[in-house]
This record gives sequence, structure tokens and C-alpha cells, in this order.
Amino acid sequence: MESRPEKLPRPGVPALDEILGRAFPVLDDGLVRVVDYMGDDAAIVQAARVSYGSGTKKTSDDRSLIRYLLRHRHTTPFEMCSLKLHVRVPMDAWRQWIRHRTASINEYSTRYSVAINSAQQTAGDQWRTQAVDNKQGSGSFLDRDTGTILSASEKAHQDSTRKLYQDRIDQGVAREQARKDLPLCTYTEAYWKMDLHNLLHFLALRMDSHAQKEIRDYATVIGQEIVARWVPMTWEAFHDYRFGAMYFSRIESGIIAAIGKGEAEEANTLAKAAGWLKPARNGGLVPNRERLEFSEKLRQLNLQIPWEQ
Amino acid sequence: MESRPEKLPRPGVPALDEILGRAFPVLDDGLVRVVDYMGDDAAIVQAARVSYGSGTKKTSDDRSLIRYLLRHRHTTPFEMCSLKLHVRVPMDAWRQWIRHRTASINEYSTRYSVAINSAQQTAGDQWRTQAVDNKQGSGSFLDRDTGTILSASEKAHQDSTRKLYQDRIDQGVAREQARKDLPLCTYTEAYWKMDLHNLLHFLALRMDSHAQKEIRDYATVIGQEIVARWVPMTWEAFHDYRFGAMYFSRIESGIIAAIGKGEAEEANTLAKAAGWLKPARNGGLVPNRERLEFSEKLRQLNLQIPWEQ
Amino acid sequence: MESRPEKLPRPGVPALDEILGRAFPVLDDGLVRVVDYMGDDAAIVQAARVSYGSGTKKTSDDRSLIRYLLRHRHTTPFEMCSLKLHVRVPMDAWRQWIRHRTASINEYSTRYSVAINSAQQTAGDQWRTQAVDNKQGSGSFLDRDTGTILSASEKAHQDSTRKLYQDRIDQGVAREQARKDLPLCTYTEAYWKMDLHNLLHFLALRMDSHAQKEIRDYATVIGQEIVARWVPMTWEAFHDYRFGAMYFSRIESGIIAAIGKGEAEEANTLAKAAGWLKPARNGGLVPNRERLEFSEKLRQLNLQIPWEQ
Amino acid sequence: MESRPEKLPRPGVPALDEILGRAFPVLDDGLVRVVDYMGDDAAIVQAARVSYGSGTKKTSDDRSLIRYLLRHRHTTPFEMCSLKLHVRVPMDAWRQWIRHRTASINEYSTRYSVAINSAQQTAGDQWRTQAVDNKQGSGSFLDRDTGTILSASEKAHQDSTRKLYQDRIDQGVAREQARKDLPLCTYTEAYWKMDLHNLLHFLALRMDSHAQKEIRDYATVIGQEIVARWVPMTWEAFHDYRFGAMYFSRIESGIIAAIGKGEAEEANTLAKAAGWLKPARNGGLVPNRERLEFSEKLRQLNLQIPWEQ
Repeated sequence: MESRPEKLPRPGVPALDEILGRAFPVLDDGLVRVVDYMGDDAAIVQAARVSYGSGTKKTSDDRSLIRYLLRHRHTTPFEMCSLKLHVRVPMDAWRQWIRHRTASINEYSTRYSVAINSAQQTAGDQWRTQAVDNKQGSGSFLDRDTGTILSASEKAHQDSTRKLYQDRIDQGVAREQARKDLPLCTYTEAYWKMDLHNLLHFLALRMDSHAQKEIRDYATVIGQEIVARWVPMTWEAFHDYRFGAMYFSRIESGIIAAIGKGEAEEANTLAKAAGWLKPARNGGLVPNRERLEFSEKLRQLNLQIPWEQ
Repeated sequence: MESRPEKLPRPGVPALDEILGRAFPVLDDGLVRVVDYMGDDAAIVQAARVSYGSGTKKTSDDRSLIRYLLRHRHTTPFEMCSLKLHVRVPMDAWRQWIRHRTASINEYSTRYSVAINSAQQTAGDQWRTQAVDNKQGSGSFLDRDTGTILSASEKAHQDSTRKLYQDRIDQGVAREQARKDLPLCTYTEAYWKMDLHNLLHFLALRMDSHAQKEIRDYATVIGQEIVARWVPMTWEAFHDYRFGAMYFSRIESGIIAAIGKGEAEEANTLAKAAGWLKPARNGGLVPNRERLEFSEKLRQLNLQIPWEQ
Repeated sequence: MESRPEKLPRPGVPALDEILGRAFPVLDDGLVRVVDYMGDDAAIVQAARVSYGSGTKKTSDDRSLIRYLLRHRHTTPFEMCSLKLHVRVPMDAWRQWIRHRTASINEYSTRYSVAINSAQQTAGDQWRTQAVDNKQGSGSFLDRDTGTILSASEKAHQDSTRKLYQDRIDQGVAREQARKDLPLCTYTEAYWKMDLHNLLHFLALRMDSHAQKEIRDYATVIGQEIVARWVPMTWEAFHDYRFGAMYFSRIESGIIAAIGKGEAEEANTLAKAAGWLKPARNGGLVPNRERLEFSEKLRQLNLQIPWEQ
Repeated sequence: MESRPEKLPRPGVPALDEILGRAFPVLDDGLVRVVDYMGDDAAIVQAARVSYGSGTKKTSDDRSLIRYLLRHRHTTPFEMCSLKLHVRVPMDAWRQWIRHRTASINEYSTRYSVAINSAQQTAGDQWRTQAVDNKQGSGSFLDRDTGTILSASEKAHQDSTRKLYQDRIDQGVAREQARKDLPLCTYTEAYWKMDLHNLLHFLALRMDSHAQKEIRDYATVIGQEIVARWVPMTWEAFHDYRFGAMYFSRIESGIIAAIGKGEAEEANTLAKAAGWLKPARNGGLVPNRERLEFSEKLRQLNLQIPWEQ
């Protein structure tokens, strides 16, 4: 490795230092703020370059190297950066959050202390319908009149639940037991630390349109307000090569290649071999999820769909 | 390594095969059952012996080797065994459970499906008081009259909460949002898989008297009904060398050694140097948690406490 | 969850049981064999279905569900399966192998025992040239005459190294120190256990044409001889949706969509905005790795390359 | 949680900033230096206090809390700190090092670049004998005359190995293949990052007298030169409660308690029940490793050994 000075300044990111401790509000009573961090775009480049040793002549600039690393899933250099947040979040969103097992976490304990006196309240225009095409997601918003009624009954319910909790505490019930009937959306607080590689994975999943809106709101703030300031080159590359990426399977690539050379028949043969074009009794095709998903991708790419000619 | 036959039977544990799929009830509506497992006591021994190669002449029998491994914290051979459970557990206990990050988990989704219509109900004689000496724990039980009232109001509350949830579902609210006010003790179900090394760590923490009673009930069933059948030698060694173990710090060992040779004065000098014997204004000693905890250990061992002479 | 019988048979895979313990040879003196395993294709499906609860009506068959999971990177159900191998492998390939941190490992110790008396020998027709286009890889084979000389000097060198090692041992040097000059390609042995999700990641990286040939040989045997027998549906889906997959970035997808609708000019505008089409002094384009890699992908798909019109 | 200012300075440790980038030499040509870090003693305390919420009134000072956490193995707050080192280390010591799976690592690649032209050389007075009582360790030093001869032959061997490597490179052999016969003690370089909880575990194992001297030298420098400056309270507590700790099993504690109240007979009964006092044919006791290890601990504590009366 190249010779190095014997004394180094500690790496820092002024744009992030600027917002250390600033609370970014999320939902009705939640927040996210940066407590500390380690590393920057340059730290990623430094870690990647140790692999190449003297064999690489720094031909590529930092931005190109970061894009190369993310494009080719060379993930370890991104682990050299870490972010530590203080978050305030409803427990049901937190349940999804802590399924990411690579984080370090210290959370407010409702065994030690009385539960935080706040539960997430849904405004009258924020009640969502069950999605029709997505078994796990939300669709549009309910009408405001219905929503207003739902919000009122939620408020009454949360108040009575808190009263139940407080009564138990007053009667001397142990905190760890008294809490059992609190709403899933009761707020909690925590310190949460994660390295950048895993954080990008977290953001890719939780900023996605399939994520529940509540955690998506948090992920979006973390991404756009924090990661964008902290490692701007990585953030740009993440958007180009990860968040907006499309995947094509071996079969799908083969079909596109046939389409590319104008061989619709060959494309259909490949699809048939994959079992995607089984004729239905009524003359159309038996529904097939792989075919439908791929057709949707072809449509996005303005490529012709061979079996819809 | 020694020569081996070209065909091996798959390792199995008849005593565990016997209970595959059997539901062990926990709490009022919970359960634990074994779905599958990998390895046995012999697999641990096999893995440990590869390290020793031909240099070790199998002088020690399997039981002694397992005890040796656990005594000296040689933990990797225990990772060669894995256990997969199906559990049904209240979400508040589950929250503690999934903080163990080394597990593989698939859980029932209340985004995909209507929430399980069951929340943990506390019987009238099961309400616990806040512990006086332990900020996070429970003490004794509340009197039954108070408990009966608490149980009745819990029942009424859980019923009204379920009704609120069902109303939302009926109005078309998305399941992922409708659930937000369900009680923390709503039951969930999951498959949970963990290797034996991490499982022993889980059991050491969750069978401990400081763990919350609800998760302790689960951990006790997993330990006594399942692990005991699966890897009996490991289970015995765990009890001897891990679960019931006492630790002494460098300072504490030094003081015991002074007590051992009858040098109470030397023992007091060491304790003083550690800052444990600061005189209080009233003539006694300033309270010091390290000293108090150590005194308690000395009492358990029937050793004299130098500063209480 | 659906009701279940109280006694379940242990899941097993006859096709894999058939080869338990069978040594698959790799390289000149290496091997891989299955010692034990947990789970099968059905276990993946079972774990995935718990998430869906009663909300899913088993409309999709097992194969479609496994393909869906792999296509959409729903990785946790694959963690429910584990594989335990016994391997014999040169230490330099092993160094790459153990960088996968999610494995459980017990390895032969050259501190406890005399080092295995075998180092990987390269045959005269197996010496590879440095790749010209890939800084880390190999190209074609050296001519056999040169190779024969290289093999002879390797043999002589390995013999003299072993003699040096044996002399040290004979003189009473500690094994942990005596080994220090043994060749990096000295064979070692280990038990190695990994869950299927992480194993697929390992195989995707190590069966790849960019992996070093030695570890690729091991990965190929593990994939084709073992995983293919163990979880055939997953193995098929892995080939279709992971191993042979192509990725397109946000920018690349946008350019393809422009090509798809026949708008070469729009495609060029997008590429220009990405900084890919900087004119070189001599009239061509400044070399740009992102553009070159994408051009290569377009060529594979038989799509026209807008900037090469 | 308490209210907080909206702008926080970034935590830093001046004593560690002082040595950022300074190379601490290890072995004949190795080094360790700090590249970056995150957190300090205060960060550990901050993370621990979030669990206690408002229920704890900061009665305990930071030092006492850190000692409490380490004494009771509350390990998660220590994960809030991370350390990133640049190391230069022989590959055989590195092999032991990277078995710690919780680190983030980027290493010099001998596929990309020509191998570092340095292998660890052992001085004439540094050759160690095989330990007699420890199958895996070293004993005393060999006499200098023998050592001088061993060092000379090592030097000659390393020179010829390097020549062999260079010849291969000159002939056009791929770097990834040419390296295969380099000595295990060839130097490599890497960035290595780990959180403090896992680092303490690493240090407890690798500073231990049973660790191989080479890695022990590295661990000692990391501990004494770096961690001691970085988190002085944690370092002190680590020494008191972890590194110098003694463990007693359930059986051992029971025997000490019997000794404590002067009941040697009861102590012997307990030992007999544990199977430790089987009479040998010749009149003594059958050797028993658990008994021998415990006797050694009793001796250290100046407590009488009941079966040696």
C-alpha cells in the first residue's frame, strides 16, 4: 500500500454534521435524528482500493468506482460506514423495522418505565382501503366522512386504553404486565445503528411502494434527508443501480433477445417451453403469474409482447 | 481424518422424533412444537474432533468432551445443531423473543390476513405486583379480588378492541392499518429456527429469573421438554456450566483468595482500593452496588464478608 | 393456521439420503460430502405460507410459490433449510470460502495436529495465464511444455517445504509455529454448515465465471451434485431467477424503453445526460465503463445500440 | 425521553484523535493503526439509559453504569461503538483473525495485485517448543544455536519461494494461481471494522495466554494502545469483569459453599455425586479433568481442596 502520513484527520461530513441532533418529524408524533456516524464516500473508496493494491492506478475517479461497486454488488466496502439514529416510532412499524437483524439496537423499556403516553393517531383523511390487487397492501383513501368517524372512535378507544393502563399501574400491577393491552401503535423510542450496506438494503425494501406507508415514511426521511447528505455519491448510485433496477431472469433475457432480433415465433417457443402459454378452455391463456409479471415489464420497456400479437 | 464409510445413515434422535409435531401448551392459548431439527450430541462431538485431527486419540468420552466444550466456551461445535419450532405467542413476548438476531423467522402476517382472534387473557390470580428491588420485574401476586376485577375489565376491553378491529375491516380499512389498535398481547404464530449455540444463549437469558414470566414459560418448555430430549448431554452440561454458573471478577477473585488464606485485612485493603468501602456520614458504608452484589455472592458461598466482621 | 396432526414424520429427501457420506472428488486431492441436512422444498413453502395465514387459499402450487419467492427476493423461507458438508480443500481456496460469514465452521487445527501431508499440485496442462481483460482472473492455459516445467518445480518446491516443516517438528518446534512456511495450497478439512438462502448467495458468487477456478470447482459440485438433489424446485428457480439473471439500472431501463418505442434520439439524450457520450479528441467517444457494460448487455439482447448507429 | 438540543456536536475522543493514522509496529513487519472510530464511553451510557427511560434518575455515574453493564453481560450498548483499523499481518495469523465473523473486512487481493513481498521471519531466539501440557500451544524457546540454524533455513526457503513466485509471474501465470505456494506467513493488509462488544470478545480470546503468540501480539497492541485510549472506562471494566474473570459451575459453587461452612465431608459427597472421585486401582483417584481444573481454581483462591486433605 502507498505510504501514508503518520497523523490523519478524522473523516467527517460537514453537511451531516450540520444536522446532527436535528429532529426530522415523521407521522403525527414520531421522529428521526442522527446521533453519530462513521465514514463517508471516501471511506468506501479507500476500502475498495485496498483490494486492488498497487495493481490499480487510480484510473477511475471516486464516483465511477462507487457506481461500479454498487452495480456489481461488491458490498463489503459499504460496510465501512455506519449510521446511528435516534428514532421515535409506533411499535407496529417498529416490529417491521427490527426484523432487519443486522442492526444494533437499544430501546426504551416499558418494563423499566411507564409506557410513553402517545399512540399514533390516524387523521380522518388518512384511513386507507384494502388493496384489491395486493393482498398485503393499501389502496386509496376512505371517504372523509367515514374516516372522521373512524378517527373519533380510535381516539375514544386509545383514551380508554390508556386509562385502563393507568388504572393497572395505580393498582400496583407490574409495568411489564400492565402494558399488555396497550395498542400496537403505541410509540417507542430507540437508538438504532446500522452499516451502510445493510442500510441500503433496508431502504430498498422499506422505501419500496410495497412497504407499509408508516415505515415507508420513516425510510424516506432517512434516505432523502440523511443518507443523501451523508454519502451523496452512494445515494445517487443507489438510485440508479439499486432502487430503480429491473431484473430479468434467464428465461426472460432469452425472450427479449428473440424479440430483439425480431423473432416473435422463437420468443413464443421459449415462453411455451417455460410453461407460460397454456391454452385455457375459453380460447385465451391460463393465467400465469410469471408471464403476467414479465408482460408488465415488457410493457414498461415498450417492447412488443409476443403472445399478445 | 479417519477413513469413513461411503454411505452414512442420517443422524436422528428417536426421543425427539417421538414428539415431532406435538403441541406443548404455554400460557392460556399459546404453544410450542418441534417441526424439524438437525444434529445431536454426537454431531457436536464430531465437529469438535475435526479440530483435533489425528492428534487426539479419543481419550475422552462424548459426555466429557461436551462438558469441556461448554466449560471453556468453545461454542462453534454447538452451531452444528439446529432446531425449528412452530410457536404461538403473544406479540409482547414475541417482541422480546425476536430481539435474538441469530434466528431465522417466518411469521404470520396481519397485513395478508385478518389478525388471529385471540389475545392473552390474564386470570384473576395471575396479576403481579411491581417488584420493589428490581425496576424491571414483577414481585408477588395481587390479591384475588383485585385480580378478578382487573381480569373482568381486561376481558371487556379486549372484546371492545376486537369489535373496533372488526368494524374497521368491515368498513374496508386495509388490514395493515386496521390492526394498529389491537392489544400488544394479541397472539401471533411463527416458524422459528436457531442453532444450538444461540439457543443455549437464548435459554440462559430467558429461563433466568429476571426474564418476564411470559417468555420464561416458553423458554422453560423449550428447554425442559425439547432440548432435554434432543441433546441430553448438552442439556446436562448447560445446567452445570452455564445456567447455574457464578462469575467472579478479577477484584472479587483476589478478595476471595485473601479470605481463603484467612487474611481479612488484606481482603479489606483490596476492597478499599476498588472504592467499595467509602465511609458514610452516619458511620456505615456508602451504598455501592458492586460491593452489595459481591457480598450476596459471598453469602451464597458461606464465605465470611470481610467488611461485615 | 390450519389444524395439524399431533405427530409428524421428520421431513427427509430420499435422493439426498442416497448420497449421505459419499465423497465427491474435487481438484487433485479434495472432496465434498454431505453429512447432514435440514428441510426440503416443502419446508420453504410451509414457512412462506405461515406469512399468508388463512388469507391465501393455496391457489399456487409449490413450484410456482418457490419461483415467486426467489423472483421477488423473499429470502427468509429459504433460511429454514440447512446443509452440513465435510470438505477437504486447499487453504487458499478455503480463505475465499470462509469470507462468507454466515456459515458455521469447525476446521482441522494445525496447532493441535501435524498439518495434512498434502498440497494441491497443478498438472502440466493446468497452468493459466493472467487474463488481459480482467485484472483478477485467469485467461487461457499456458503451453504444456512450459506447464510441465512449472509443475516439476512446484513438486520439488512442495517436497522441500514439507521436509523443512518435518525438520522443525523433529527439532521440537511448536506445531503452531512450524507450519508458518507451508504453502498456501496445503489441504485442510472442515465441517461447514450454512442455510439455503446464504448457500444460494455463495453459489451465485462462486459458480460465477469471475470466481477463481479452484473454488468454482467446489461450488459447481455443491450445486450440481448436492443442491440439485436436495431441493430440485429451488435449484431450478435459482437457475432461472438468480444465476442467469440480468440487471438493468434506472438509466438503462429508461434507454431500453426509448429503444423499444424506436426513439434512438431520446435514447441518446438519456445516455448523454448520464455522462456516457463524451466526445473524445479523435472523434470517437471517451471510454466509459458504464456505457461499455451496457452496450454489451444490449448486444446480448439483440437490441440496437443507439450510439453505434 | 428528555428534551434535547436541536444541534449536537459530533462525539469524539481527543486521546484517540491524537493517534489516528499512527502505525503501531507488531512482529517483524506488521502494523496496526486506527483509521476511524464511532462512539465513546458516553455513547455506551447514552444507549443504556434509553432502556431505562425516565424510570432511572441518573443515580449512578457513568463509570458505575459501564461496570454494571459489563458485569451483567448487557452487551448491546457496547455495539454502539465501532473501530476501524488498518492492519498488516501474516496470513496465518490473519486466518485466525477472520474467523471472527462479526467484522467488516476489505483485504489486499493477491488476485488483483502481485503479493506483498514480505513474509514473517522468525528470529533465532524466537523459535518455540511444543507445549507439553497444552496440545495446541507453545512452551519455552529453543536454544539459540538451534534457532539460528532454523532462521537461516527459513530465510533461504522464503527467498527461494519468492523466486519461484516471481518466475511464475514472469512466465505469465495468473496471479491467482502463481501465489499458491507462497508461505502461510506471507504478509497481507486489510481494513478491519468491528463494534466494541464484539471487539471485547475478540480481545478476551486473543489476548488470552492460550492464543497463539503472533495474534496475541496484535490483540495486545489493539487493547493496550488503542482501546485503552478510546474507551478508558470500558477498558478498565473489561479487565475487572471479563478478562480476569473466573467462572464456577453449579457443582463447583455448591462445593465451595460446603467448604465455606467448613463441611469438607459434604463437599466430598457433592464431588462424588459428580463422578469426580472414582478410586483408581493403585489407591489414588482416577484422573478427571473437571476435578483437576477445579482443584486448580481452589488453589488460586487459597481454599482447601476437600479430596486432598
